[in-house]
Amino acid sequence: MPHSVVDELLYEARLYAARFGQPHSVVPDKHLAIVTCMDSRIDVFGLFGLAIGDAHIIRNAGGIVTDDVLRSLVLSQRVLRTREVILVHHTDCGLQQIHEAEFREKLRADVGEPPPYEFGAFDDVDAAVKRAIQRVREHKFLPSRDLVHGFVYEVKTGVLREPH
Amino acid sequence: MPHSVVDELLYEARLYAARFGQPHSVVPDKHLAIVTCMDSRIDVFGLFGLAIGDAHIIRNAGGIVTDDVLRSLVLSQRVLRTREVILVHHTDCGLQQIHEAEFREKLRADVGEPPPYEFGAFDDVDAAVKRAIQRVREHKFLPSRDLVHGFVYEVKTGVLREPH
Repeated sequence: MPHSVVDELLYEARLYAARFGQPHSVVPDKHLAIVTCMDSRIDVFGLFGLAIGDAHIIRNAGGIVTDDVLRSLVLSQRVLRTREVILVHHTDCGLQQIHEAEFREKLRADVGEPPPYEFGAFDDVDAAVKRAIQRVREHKFLPSRDLVHGFVYEVKTGVLREPH
Repeated sequence: MPHSVVDELLYEARLYAARFGQPHSVVPDKHLAIVTCMDSRIDVFGLFGLAIGDAHIIRNAGGIVTDDVLRSLVLSQRVLRTREVILVHHTDCGLQQIHEAEFREKLRADVGEPPPYEFGAFDDVDAAVKRAIQRVREHKFLPSRDLVHGFVYEVKTGVLREPH
């Protein structure tokens, strides 16, 4: 069995609880949801100067707008009263390293059947974030679609920029 | 149009870029993926003492294990070599505030058709995190399923605990 890191993380979690301050309300103070990639190099709190209680943070492989992201945004807006969406894709993404058909075929060969979902591989990060914005704007179950922003985060420089 | 918070966040992002240090590799140092809720009160870096580059972070409404989470975990393990999974659900979750059938019916009445996904409402957070662990352990497209942990985060106290 590989080495587990869980004990060191649980130690940190005990320190965190020991210095825990006041609890916050469930409704995000900035009425904001941020959607981005799971990538380990994106510290959403640090990047945007967020405090606990400020914003919903939704993350998956790529930060692409899947049905699960739309489900989460609908709950964010309709149950917890957020009104604004920021979508962040990034350079050097794992989804730019794979070829969709080849990756699916490799899994089918390994496991004996194809995976029950598409992976969402993309080449052009700027085009991908524009598609993400469009998909949120078109989702009619979301009551608030006026403030939907999209950016590209450059993991080599720490710069957040508008899509080209 | 409602007030936008994007300008203040972009100001913070410029400060972040100005003090940016060394870039990190795309492979997470701790070979770890963490799955949790989008809830604004969960600071994953702070809770677990993480540094940039340590772990993939996957977040959606509830931290429930949807197909999109499994997609993300498969990419995390197969493309970016993580081996361990930590699942964190939390108390006072928005998904405990809704009744699935009533919420879907409200959306159908508002929009004129039902939403194309289930929301995943749950009552018992301990049972929900145990289901999440089980769903990851059963997903045969994941090569590494020995180190799958699940916890409940208490948003009122900051305590992370094992599920009951």
